[in-house]
Amino acid sequence: MASGGPEIEQLIQLLARLPGLGPRSARRAVLQLVKKKEQLMIPLSAALDRAVEAVRSCEVCGNIDTMSPCSICADPRRNDSGMLIVVEDVADLWALERAGVGAVKYHVLGGVLSPLDGVGPEDISIEALLGRAHEFREIVLAVNATVEGQTTAHYITDRLAGSGAKVTRLAHGVPVGGELDYLDEGTLSQALRARTEI
Amino acid sequence: MASGGPEIEQLIQLLARLPGLGPRSARRAVLQLVKKKEQLMIPLSAALDRAVEAVRSCEVCGNIDTMSPCSICADPRRNDSGMLIVVEDVADLWALERAGVGAVKYHVLGGVLSPLDGVGPEDISIEALLGRAHEFREIVLAVNATVEGQTTAHYITDRLAGSGAKVTRLAHGVPVGGELDYLDEGTLSQALRARTEI
Repeated sequence: MASGGPEIEQLIQLLARLPGLGPRSARRAVLQLVKKKEQLMIPLSAALDRAVEAVRSCEVCGNIDTMSPCSICADPRRNDSGMLIVVEDVADLWALERAGVGAVKYHVLGGVLSPLDGVGPEDISIEALLGRAHEFREIVLAVNATVEGQTTAHYITDRLAGSGAKVTRLAHGVPVGGELDYLDEGTLSQALRARTEI
Repeated sequence: MASGGPEIEQLIQLLARLPGLGPRSARRAVLQLVKKKEQLMIPLSAALDRAVEAVRSCEVCGNIDTMSPCSICADPRRNDSGMLIVVEDVADLWALERAGVGAVKYHVLGGVLSPLDGVGPEDISIEALLGRAHEFREIVLAVNATVEGQTTAHYITDRLAGSGAKVTRLAHGVPVGGELDYLDEGTLSQALRARTEI
């Protein structure tokens, strides 16, 4: 029911397609936008215009940036570590950057192998990864600890055999600040096996 | 940490100010936008541009629309009922329209009286309401059932005395589909007192 005319209705429908927003919260968001037209709606409109103009995928690693190669790939200080972190998604890359993991480079697969969903090796960025693997001393497979993620990690490990790079994965264990009581048994037993001396 | 350049970072910060979105979900929303540039980001950018251009507040009732007086105030079929529904917010007006309450008109207060927050009668649209009250036979105070809402309803009822219009409020009771067990005592006792014959 369009109480605010087609422009408003269309804005609600588009915002409702963002993750985390449904029809109801999109409606509240649009009301907020209209109420704060000067402080919020006009700046957001301008920011979107600029982003549409500027944002592109990095042709080397798959990161999202305003330049290609992206600012991470183009950063010469990141060449020294010789470490390439392979992630499923740009969101994972950003999460690692926020964690301040250091002067590393990344490779975004853009998905995981999933035979059931018809996602094969040619559907994600594996060939590009194999093509640049020789530039690195260590390749960290930071894929999610899901069945598909682990399948993908196994497949990549096989394909990287003979590349000369050491292939590693993230440690499993108790999250910092996490309570043991709420952890699954798999994580707990892995955390015990990988215990370290204090 | 700006992993995607200043354009992306600014977009995240603006989206994070929408109700229902925080920094984390704003980041996910921006990633979704960038991934679906053609299907989502460009249409959303265009829809926002159009809305910035077109959207205004109705000078009569305070509704948000692309014309003023708004399509509801301008609708001649809504003159017959003689009913004016007073709401706190445009969201409430939209909710009532979605509920299909019929050919009524609205008045958006744009807030409620709240002495603690320094919101007095001159800060919300009460004078405008008094100015148009004589056009209606019945004025329904559909303000929220909060302390501030009820204070506002009392104040408006006092000011409307002598206007000739009947002043009513929404019924309290059990929400349709609601379970008694989860209802507060106040609602339950009001629902019992206002019981109707089957």
